Amino acid sequence: LTLNKQVVLLVGGVGGAKLAYGLAKIVPPERLTIIVNTADDFWHYGLRICPDLDTVMYTLANRVNTANGWGVDGDTRAMLEMMRDYGEDPWFGLGDKDIATHLLRTQAWQEGQTLTQITQRLTKGLGIACTILPMTDAPVATIVDTVEQGELGFQDYFVRHRWQPTLRGLRLDGIEAATVSPEVEAALKAADTIIIGPSNPWLSINPIVSVPGMRELIEAQNVARVAVTPIVAGTAIKGPAAKIMGELRLEVTVKTVVEYYATLINGFVYDERDEDFHIDSIRKIAFDTIMDSDEKRILLAHRVLDWALGTSEGDRIR
Amino acid sequence: LTLNKQVVLLVGGVGGAKLAYGLAKIVPPERLTIIVNTADDFWHYGLRICPDLDTVMYTLANRVNTANGWGVDGDTRAMLEMMRDYGEDPWFGLGDKDIATHLLRTQAWQEGQTLTQITQRLTKGLGIACTILPMTDAPVATIVDTVEQGELGFQDYFVRHRWQPTLRGLRLDGIEAATVSPEVEAALKAADTIIIGPSNPWLSINPIVSVPGMRELIEAQNVARVAVTPIVAGTAIKGPAAKIMGELRLEVTVKTVVEYYATLINGFVYDERDEDFHIDSIRKIAFDTIMDSDEKRILLAHRVLDWALGTSEGDRIR
Repeated sequence: LTLNKQVVLLVGGVGGAKLAYGLAKIVPPERLTIIVNTADDFWHYGLRICPDLDTVMYTLANRVNTANGWGVDGDTRAMLEMMRDYGEDPWFGLGDKDIATHLLRTQAWQEGQTLTQITQRLTKGLGIACTILPMTDAPVATIVDTVEQGELGFQDYFVRHRWQPTLRGLRLDGIEAATVSPEVEAALKAADTIIIGPSNPWLSINPIVSVPGMRELIEAQNVARVAVTPIVAGTAIKGPAAKIMGELRLEVTVKTVVEYYATLINGFVYDERDEDFHIDSIRKIAFDTIMDSDEKRILLAHRVLDWALGTSEGDRIR
Repeated sequence: LTLNKQVVLLVGGVGGAKLAYGLAKIVPPERLTIIVNTADDFWHYGLRICPDLDTVMYTLANRVNTANGWGVDGDTRAMLEMMRDYGEDPWFGLGDKDIATHLLRTQAWQEGQTLTQITQRLTKGLGIACTILPMTDAPVATIVDTVEQGELGFQDYFVRHRWQPTLRGLRLDGIEAATVSPEVEAALKAADTIIIGPSNPWLSINPIVSVPGMRELIEAQNVARVAVTPIVAGTAIKGPAAKIMGELRLEVTVKTVVEYYATLINGFVYDERDEDFHIDSIRKIAFDTIMDSDEKRILLAHRVLDWALGTSEGDRIR
């Protein structure tokens, strides 16, 4: 089925990485490109850390800590222990093995390599055959405006404060200067389908499509552009999507997500636990979208692809 | 005895750190300053690593791996394992805890702090009460000219090639631009005695006294300036001192070391295993200089200090 089709997936971290894992099991690696949010990236102890890229990488390399969904399996925290001995209060979970990734990335970054080149070197090093691309080579930073603490850097909000402050706005620092990389452009133009993973629409997908030119580029592709719901039965499987929707005074429903994506997509996969809904000009289908095992990741990837590429029994979108 | 005397010690890494440890046990911390060779420092995986400063720090903090004489006690190597998974061939022993030191240093370095300030922050963090100073704040790099491989960076020569290539020359890259820091100058001017540890004269002590102005500053101090022998019974306790002396066509004797230091010192402690020797204008004394236990480190520190400060029964030098 998918042997001669080019598939592009847009994702953030943990949730999206699960669908990436499923797709990587069924799409030939030379035909799969995963475009990853980098607006969560930050500097920490002098290291350039890209949490979403790392999560996708470790997941596809079969190296992820499956209990967390992020970090390296079997990793230790000796460096962080020593930081505490130095009187530091480390709040970001840097595993010792994980640090190798950040060191190689930071060194290459300081030498002037692009994040695309760096990611290529890291993914190849971990034996990943498909292509993982940062959304842009420019540094972009999500800044979360909160009621309680004002503006916070993303990881400060997300990890240090465990997304507990009340969000009242978001901005993307550096986004005006960002550009779509030639690699991302080529992948999108060659795509036979573009899939948006079940990632946070506001925190993970919006930064990607906010890169100047990205939304237009995606919408110009006359292919199935299918999002997989991050909301199941009125809540998020993981993370702050539902909480944020409430704080933005949005109804926590699948429909809200579809309306948010608007013309970016022409197809939507919602969960069979949710009721059907009506929106003009969009095709949709319900699957079991909860990916709590490798088998279910592969099964969902299969179903989404089949439907997107128009070969399934469902409501065809091409 | 030493309660009202200012003591300055010049050292490189492991051997010198043992005498530093002994001195730190008997000299009040506010009266002890240790000036450390930084010409071994280098960049590795984007980290600024100062092997001699780290060895002295870990030793004085009671955190050193006593089997090696360097590195952090009980450290692990998970980061290096992951580097190997990335296809790297890491040849420098970076422990996971050790990395915390390099991260804090590198981050502060990138922020523009001086190595003196950074070392202050690290030593205080590890609970070290005496003062440890880098020989200079400028980056200086020992380059070893070898018969087999031409010029090698110091760690490349020392660690990667285990000091096996034949040395035919040494130069100190960056030394012309280096200056004596105000902290080093103040410590030397206040010193009641200046002790040169049993470190490698060519690789560890020469860089320190090659900082422009350093030798003159030391020699201008009208106090006991006492070196402790790095050569015992015609060889080095540890490291390449004897091998290098042979390669430089020098006799591997205590006398060669004394002649090399020349006017830098006015007193010399040789080992009781060696025969007495004659050199004009220098006082000398023989002790057991092998510091293979904490007790022997403290005992040697005591004897050297007593002799240097002129209170012992030996051949007084003031």
